[in-house]
Amino acid sequence: MSDTTLSSAGPVDAKLIENLVAASRILAHHGVLDAWGHVSMRHPSNPQRYLMSRARAPAMVSIDDIMEFDLDSNPVDQRDRRCFLERFIHGCAYKARPDVNAVVHSHSPTVVPFSVTDQPLRAISSVASFLACGCPVFDFHNVSRTKGLLITNNEQGATLAKVLGEKPVALMRGHGNLVVAADIPRVVHRALYTEINAKQLATALSFGRPIKYIAEDEMLDPQRLGDSWDVWKNEAMGG
Amino acid sequence: MSDTTLSSAGPVDAKLIENLVAASRILAHHGVLDAWGHVSMRHPSNPQRYLMSRARAPAMVSIDDIMEFDLDSNPVDQRDRRCFLERFIHGCAYKARPDVNAVVHSHSPTVVPFSVTDQPLRAISSVASFLACGCPVFDFHNVSRTKGLLITNNEQGATLAKVLGEKPVALMRGHGNLVVAADIPRVVHRALYTEINAKQLATALSFGRPIKYIAEDEMLDPQRLGDSWDVWKNEAMGG
Amino acid sequence: MSDTTLSSAGPVDAKLIENLVAASRILAHHGVLDAWGHVSMRHPSNPQRYLMSRARAPAMVSIDDIMEFDLDSNPVDQRDRRCFLERFIHGCAYKARPDVNAVVHSHSPTVVPFSVTDQPLRAISSVASFLACGCPVFDFHNVSRTKGLLITNNEQGATLAKVLGEKPVALMRGHGNLVVAADIPRVVHRALYTEINAKQLATALSFGRPIKYIAEDEMLDPQRLGDSWDVWKNEAMGG
Amino acid sequence: MSDTTLSSAGPVDAKLIENLVAASRILAHHGVLDAWGHVSMRHPSNPQRYLMSRARAPAMVSIDDIMEFDLDSNPVDQRDRRCFLERFIHGCAYKARPDVNAVVHSHSPTVVPFSVTDQPLRAISSVASFLACGCPVFDFHNVSRTKGLLITNNEQGATLAKVLGEKPVALMRGHGNLVVAADIPRVVHRALYTEINAKQLATALSFGRPIKYIAEDEMLDPQRLGDSWDVWKNEAMGG
Repeated sequence: MSDTTLSSAGPVDAKLIENLVAASRILAHHGVLDAWGHVSMRHPSNPQRYLMSRARAPAMVSIDDIMEFDLDSNPVDQRDRRCFLERFIHGCAYKARPDVNAVVHSHSPTVVPFSVTDQPLRAISSVASFLACGCPVFDFHNVSRTKGLLITNNEQGATLAKVLGEKPVALMRGHGNLVVAADIPRVVHRALYTEINAKQLATALSFGRPIKYIAEDEMLDPQRLGDSWDVWKNEAMGG
Repeated sequence: MSDTTLSSAGPVDAKLIENLVAASRILAHHGVLDAWGHVSMRHPSNPQRYLMSRARAPAMVSIDDIMEFDLDSNPVDQRDRRCFLERFIHGCAYKARPDVNAVVHSHSPTVVPFSVTDQPLRAISSVASFLACGCPVFDFHNVSRTKGLLITNNEQGATLAKVLGEKPVALMRGHGNLVVAADIPRVVHRALYTEINAKQLATALSFGRPIKYIAEDEMLDPQRLGDSWDVWKNEAMGG
Repeated sequence: MSDTTLSSAGPVDAKLIENLVAASRILAHHGVLDAWGHVSMRHPSNPQRYLMSRARAPAMVSIDDIMEFDLDSNPVDQRDRRCFLERFIHGCAYKARPDVNAVVHSHSPTVVPFSVTDQPLRAISSVASFLACGCPVFDFHNVSRTKGLLITNNEQGATLAKVLGEKPVALMRGHGNLVVAADIPRVVHRALYTEINAKQLATALSFGRPIKYIAEDEMLDPQRLGDSWDVWKNEAMGG
Repeated sequence: MSDTTLSSAGPVDAKLIENLVAASRILAHHGVLDAWGHVSMRHPSNPQRYLMSRARAPAMVSIDDIMEFDLDSNPVDQRDRRCFLERFIHGCAYKARPDVNAVVHSHSPTVVPFSVTDQPLRAISSVASFLACGCPVFDFHNVSRTKGLLITNNEQGATLAKVLGEKPVALMRGHGNLVVAADIPRVVHRALYTEINAKQLATALSFGRPIKYIAEDEMLDPQRLGDSWDVWKNEAMGG
């Protein structure tokens, strides 16, 4: 799978790599990522490349684990490093969505119940207003019946990207979700508040009364995430 | 927005400022404040002023972040410091309620489900008996349809204060709540037990049986909060 | 309230006092006690006396905070120390139940929902089989309508003890519970697993299907709690 | 019960013992094991022997606590060490299932509600796809009515093993579960995700809509658990 003809798109600002690592740690710290999720970012110099850690539990990712991939998810310089089997989720999202520069794939715990019923996951909290447009649900049955409900090739990845469409979040039936955004702080915000909003909606649904969802014209993409990013990073990385 | 003609109401006892900082940290430690909530106190020497941190995640607020505002929420001495966009919630509460000396605005997670249904949030626990009189719900639709469901001016803030009336807590639809009290330990107690009581009530409602709420004549404002304040502060601040 | 004619029942083995302190810390660590609950033990040399900390948050109790009381809940040697207003819960339990040597009063969070509905709290887990005989519910309305739902005298305390009868746990409507046992490790076990079993039962009830409770002839009081006590103490006290 | 004629099957690789200890600590860290559960492994040199700690809370188990047992659960070299009363659960599982080399018995908190109702516990998350074949429920009533719902002899243990059949997990009514696997990392994975999937299924059921469970032909046993094992061990053991 490693293609020796690929050459690197070049070095990346250490601060950006540090943020990519922080994103893994933050989402693990908040329980959105378990031992198997992953975060990636598009290469800042070459939109045909993305950066993601080698196969490691996200809570343990460090700067030295970051690898470069083309959009077919071939590693640029694999050496002896194992890659995530599911990396095609990332490559296909970058291919289909030029506006996307950061991707999370998670087993976000409270997202799973919404992925296995026809109960829609929609925004009830303004901090999660990006969910006002709803979350499409990808079912592996629609591609090919696979063991383990894993996306492990570009055909499956492309189908998931198609289900995602122009939305920020797609659920993956019996598995988790795909979250995309324009940058790393934003994709962390979305992955985190998708989980929080899912918990809140489950509680609201338990009351058995009509729910006033956030309307699409009430959506607001936060203008800046500097303050929240600082505290998330501080909590997860120390110092 | 900064008004250079404003002069400060004067220095404030370091212990009071320390308690204001502790309040932010305590409510962040207990998960009532996420990366965006805020706590304020009325200026002890001048009731036309209040004190609140510059825009920072509450878990990271320190003494040097505290700024002074007039009740129109103009900063007295802004310099290069960013202010919370939503500070008008605080200024308007102080204007409308002379009895109030401390204000919290939060995204208290289990309060949100109550804010988006017509299920009332009322006290079932004596420690939260301040909720026996019920929580009015503010809906942004009643003011002006705004993106992000944010209160960012004095007109909106005044409407919220009017919905609050003489109560200790108002819910803000799809957003969180406004909590007011006579002092900092009390507003922390109220913000914390509004969340806890909301969780307990959600569980009680799930039984599908009639609920014996705390009656208004069973309400009791705690006479002193010294012991609880000590442990909350110790847990959140260390030592 | 302090009676200067009372003389102490004598010094108590330091290890026993240390366990009493540990009990407060353990139950605070597990979220069974919030800032206001309390644990007590009967004096080992004189059954007409009991030992309890002065008024402090249970997470902060230390050996020097332990005071001696008679069964009317008069402090033996008050000095300038504040006593818990609710200590009559303890004194009356010791008076009514010679078999009881340890008492907990808590705001156990998931117990409250059961206290405000007619949904009985019964054992579904063998580790909580002491609840197989059910939990009577005390309502303050049955004594005298009081502000704050607090027990603050011996008349109210005696009524609660009467409601408890020969059971290990009584719920207090809109407030929490009273837990009694033959010794400190056992009362900690009961207070902790009353909370855990309440959570489990709330989940089981949510399925809307018949529940197989632990039958009374399946009850088993644990023969020894040494191993669990070791780990609880270690987690709460360190080392 | 100790049989002095038994001789040891010989020393075991320190790394394997370390993993057995880590398994106890990991499952305690994640709240799957409380103060009383246990983990064991089959002896790598002699399939008629298994290794398990002496009676200690799993969070406190260390390498020196590991003892050797025959498949009737007699200790090889008891000395003054207390053994778990319930060890027959382990011995009988190894006897009935030659494919099994690692066993967990837990009070997994969210498993208990499923054990006391006829609501089946089945997989809705691909990480827990090992539950796609369902979980049989053992009821002590089927053996002999016992106090405390404890398995304390080989007859009871054999009945539980029979209920387990060829499955990876059996629920024990009003008590917890039995989890088996081919090795220690796999049994930890199964015990942990049985709890997580139970929580997720309880939430999904609360929506009151049909659930798309993981089908048996979607099951996939993870090929390797190295990455997750690393992070679980790191979180629980430090360093």
